[in-house]
Order: sequence, then structure tokens, then C-alpha cells
Amino acid sequence: MGASLCMDLKEGGLCREVRGVARRTRTVLDAFFAGAVDLVTNDLHTGILGADIVILATPVRNIISTLNEIGPRLWPGTLVMDMGSTKSSICAAMEMLPPALEPVGGHPMCGKETAGFESAECGLYRNATWVLSPLPRTSPAALDLAAELAEAVGAQPVILDAARHDRLVASISHLPFLVASALTRAVADVGADDAAVWQLAAGGFRDTSRVAASDTQMFLDILMTNRSAVLDQVETFQAHLGELRALLEDGDEEGLRALLQGTQQVRAGWTQGK
Amino acid sequence: MGASLCMDLKEGGLCREVRGVARRTRTVLDAFFAGAVDLVTNDLHTGILGADIVILATPVRNIISTLNEIGPRLWPGTLVMDMGSTKSSICAAMEMLPPALEPVGGHPMCGKETAGFESAECGLYRNATWVLSPLPRTSPAALDLAAELAEAVGAQPVILDAARHDRLVASISHLPFLVASALTRAVADVGADDAAVWQLAAGGFRDTSRVAASDTQMFLDILMTNRSAVLDQVETFQAHLGELRALLEDGDEEGLRALLQGTQQVRAGWTQGK
Repeated sequence: MGASLCMDLKEGGLCREVRGVARRTRTVLDAFFAGAVDLVTNDLHTGILGADIVILATPVRNIISTLNEIGPRLWPGTLVMDMGSTKSSICAAMEMLPPALEPVGGHPMCGKETAGFESAECGLYRNATWVLSPLPRTSPAALDLAAELAEAVGAQPVILDAARHDRLVASISHLPFLVASALTRAVADVGADDAAVWQLAAGGFRDTSRVAASDTQMFLDILMTNRSAVLDQVETFQAHLGELRALLEDGDEEGLRALLQGTQQVRAGWTQGK
Repeated sequence: MGASLCMDLKEGGLCREVRGVARRTRTVLDAFFAGAVDLVTNDLHTGILGADIVILATPVRNIISTLNEIGPRLWPGTLVMDMGSTKSSICAAMEMLPPALEPVGGHPMCGKETAGFESAECGLYRNATWVLSPLPRTSPAALDLAAELAEAVGAQPVILDAARHDRLVASISHLPFLVASALTRAVADVGADDAAVWQLAAGGFRDTSRVAASDTQMFLDILMTNRSAVLDQVETFQAHLGELRALLEDGDEEGLRALLQGTQQVRAGWTQGK
């Protein structure tokens, strides 16, 4: 995500200077040889020196520890953004930054399940929704600058407070991930007895299980920092699946029909609205 | 499914004559004007008169009632196939056909979630797995002819007995459908309070919920004719999701990591094998 943003910013000439900071030497070299940045380093303190805007694009808990580390070293007025998948814990950490800094939480919704430089691409943010979560302390000018940056790479900024963002993504992203993992395991159980299941698995199952392939560390950070919202959604989902199961056990075809048709109408209304 | 097959058979000149039988006048006219068949009718008895091969492509329980209806009217030696999504109940009905007929159950796995002539397309079966479920009474020659037909439109025939087929598709198709429906309802619950959820729903959720858009009547037939296998799979899935939920409730990050990584390896092994 960070590398894709660097590419867009550099290619569009949108910043005076684009710096990349990566921990892994391999990523530093990749970014350098790809020309994705003006300057690249694996030294965090060097990388942030004199920056006007700092954007953190790592798993959530790494963003939090990095915020604590760089806070005292940034210049007054620096806009501090992030691209983390959950917002409440990050915004809480941003609240603790020195008062002269301008933090804004953020989450571009790209639906990408892979991480690392090799997944980076220009134009990733075009037409994506980019959630911005201002803090009470965030100045209007800082929020405007964050929105301008999102728009500059083609994204549509949407302002949502952190708790609201976290509840919504628990529903549309974190729950589907857990469900896809459980589904993949259920199929794997059948596959352990009868390998023909993999031969038969067609497009429907590939779609349904795709999100289970997301980066594990990223998702552990998501789950651990959004536990209560995710658990709420799991509970709601379990209730709905339980209802479908009970209707099927009872052979209640009309009950199933009403429920399934209602669900289809909701989904059709959503996809047509897109 | 039936219309797509007619198009392939006619376009390839694979049969002496391709007849289409449809209940709805609209479908009869569509098939006629599209040139998808040599002859078209909405009269079942006329349509099957003198046929060498009869292929039933309707929802499962309609296939069963049609088998009962046409059995006494078919010529000796006629190959009777179907394209239904579950096999046990269809093969049981085929068992009751007059002894001179040659029934073979079948299920092309195309992963298509829409029904009707407007969804028909040439080449739908290319590279698809086409399950064939012979009955004890099916002659080798009849099974060969069924396999030849599948191969003629580019599909790969796979021989599986009806019960085995039904267990496998319960896992990779029927369970994912119920799960996608429950997931869509969980998101709709959130959306009822906060419409921003639809704005945020990105590719991941669209993939995960796509199968929920399948034709309702088709899926009711599937669920009602494959109940016990589907309920087994729902139970397995619920156990796996319950395990993930318990680990998350306990904040057991290492337990979650081990489980999620194991699941990814299974899925990666499957998708790489494709």
C-alpha cells in the first residue's frame, strides 16, 4: 500500500520529494531500482527528518509503535497520516503525539489481499474510497491537506470517526475474512478424505475463499485491535446462519425462500447502487 | 445451462438435430430468434419425440417430475441425461425409468449464478469439469456417449457416484451459498443503521457475497434435495468458525496465527494446483 502510494505521488510529481522508508533491505532495493521514490532508506529517523507529511503504511500495531517512536522527532505542523486497517487504537495513539503535530487517521479501501513491494502498482487508489478519521485535535487545514492527498491519487475521501469506521469494516472485511478461513477449513476437511473436492471447486468457491489468502500478520493486527467490533459481527453472522440451518433442518421451504429472496434484494440493491 | 449447451451443439454441428423445449413462451422465442436450436417448442411430448439423447436442464425437482413424465414416451435405447446440481435424488428417479432407457446423471460445474436464456453463452463448458454419475444399470456404451458429449463441448468428464458428488458439492457450493447469504444479512443489519457500510464495501465483500445472488428456486431445489449433506457441512463450518471466535475472545494470538497460516497453506496448495 505504501509503495503504491509512493509510485503515484512520484509519477504525478505531486510532492517536492518522495521518501521511502522500509525495514527490509530487499524492499529498499526494490523501491530504489523501480524508481518508486526520490530517496530511500532503512533508517526511520533519517527518513522522517524534515518531512512535511509522514504516512505510515504497516500493520496496525507497528503503526502504533512507530507513532510513539517518531513523535518527538517530527517538526511542528507535520501532517501525520496512516493507512492502517483499523482506526480506534491508531487514533488513540495519535492523540498522544506532541501537540504541535497534526495527526489524521486514514484507511484507503483497496481490497488488496497481498502485502509487500512486489504487490505495489500505480493507480491502486483510483476510485477507491479513502476513509479519513480526524481526531478532536485535528485542524481543518490538516484534514483538508489529507483529503487533497487522497484526491490527488484519484481516491474519494470519506470522513468517518474511528469507532464508526471500525464497526463498518468489521462487518464488510474482518468478518468475511474469518468466514472465508472457516469455509476453507471445512472444504479442507472434505478434501482430506476425498481429493476430488479440489477438482470440483469452481469459481464460486474460489471467490468465497479469496480473502482467506490475505496477509496473516496484517490480519492478526486487525483482529487484535478490533476485537470487540469483530466479535459482535461474528455473533450476528452466527445467528443468521443458525436461522438458515434451522429452516433447512425443519424442511421449511417457504421460510427459506422468503429469507433468501430478501437477502438477494438487499445485495442487488447494493450492487446496482455501485 | 441448457440453452448454452444447445448453442455449442448447434454451432459445432455436433448433432444431427438440436431441439429446444422450454416452458416459457419468451424462452421459446429467444431460442428461435437466436438460432440456438434447429427446432423449438414449448410442448414437452413433441420435443422428445424420437430423440436419441434427452438432456434435462431445469431445477432438480423439476428434472425428477419430468423424468417420471417422459419415461414411458421415450424410444428404447435413448440416453437420458440431466444437468441438475444434486445427483442422489435424480439418480434415484432415473433408476425408476423403463428398463430399455439408458440414464446417466450429470452436473457440469460452471459456477454460473444466473439462470434463463439471457445468461446463455457459447463456450460455457470449455474446460469445465462435467461430473457424470452412472447408475448400476447404465451400460458402458451409454456412459461413453455421455462423456463424448461433454468432451465435444470442451468439458472434462469426471465419473463420481451420486452420493459422493453430493457430499463434495455440499462443501464447495451449497455451504458457501448459505454462508454468503448469512454474511450479506449481517452486513445488511449494519447497513440498516449506517448506510455508509455500502459505500465502504469493496471488492473483498463483493467476492464473498457473490454466490448469494444465485437463482433462488435453483438453490431451494438444491438445499431440499441435498439436506443431510448440506447440514453436515454447515455443522463442520460452524465448528471452525466457533474455534476462530473462541481464540479471538481469549486474545490467543499465537493460536489464531497457527490456525490462519495452516488455512492459507491449504488454499495456496489448491490454487497453485489449478
